[in-house]
Amino acid sequence: MFQENLKRLVTDTEGGIAGLLMGFDGIAVDSYSAPNGGVDINTVGMEFSFILGQIRKATEILEVGGVNEVAIRCENLTIMIRVLSKEYFLALALKPDGNFGKGRYLLRVVAPKMQGELT
Amino acid sequence: MFQENLKRLVTDTEGGIAGLLMGFDGIAVDSYSAPNGGVDINTVGMEFSFILGQIRKATEILEVGGVNEVAIRCENLTIMIRVLSKEYFLALALKPDGNFGKGRYLLRVVAPKMQGELT
Repeated sequence: MFQENLKRLVTDTEGGIAGLLMGFDGIAVDSYSAPNGGVDINTVGMEFSFILGQIRKATEILEVGGVNEVAIRCENLTIMIRVLSKEYFLALALKPDGNFGKGRYLLRVVAPKMQGELT
Repeated sequence: MFQENLKRLVTDTEGGIAGLLMGFDGIAVDSYSAPNGGVDINTVGMEFSFILGQIRKATEILEVGGVNEVAIRCENLTIMIRVLSKEYFLALALKPDGNFGKGRYLLRVVAPKMQGELT
């Protein structure tokens, strides 16, 4: 159901490691990990679901509108997040030298398909 | 001292609203706001200094290396952050339709200059 889109997201992005559909409560709906990716995407998602919640609180205080996308580049991993609804977000983990622009593009392409399946 | 680089960052990025050099403790070192930008960059920075701290904690738990860049796209504002050191970060606020790629490029260009001045 979601697996096909998550797999496409990861395999079509150069350097893609894992894709995740998760609730803001940190509970995963579905995920796909590339072989030998070396990342536990569920643990990553749980940590960032908490941070996303904090970001939402900050943006409400600042009155800058809803959060659409978050990208975090670390030395050994890049995490890209696209908010799907008040309840769910889509995340893509990339190698540091992965194709950031392609990942962002595919998140935008896949997001409405996932949203359609979620309702 | 920092003002020249902050101004360049904002004015050379299409849609740039404000630039900020801030400590992770939420205390601003210097900032530059474009005329009629309509954003209190110090308040934005304070909220996101807290979030950056949370992101650093998460990345330590996940062992994915230090945080280099964070980008948050909201409906009415985009915030781009580049970590300069353990103590300081550089932030750029953009309009939602601002030039994201140019902003990220200029943050990378300006960062080492600011780091040089900070030591």
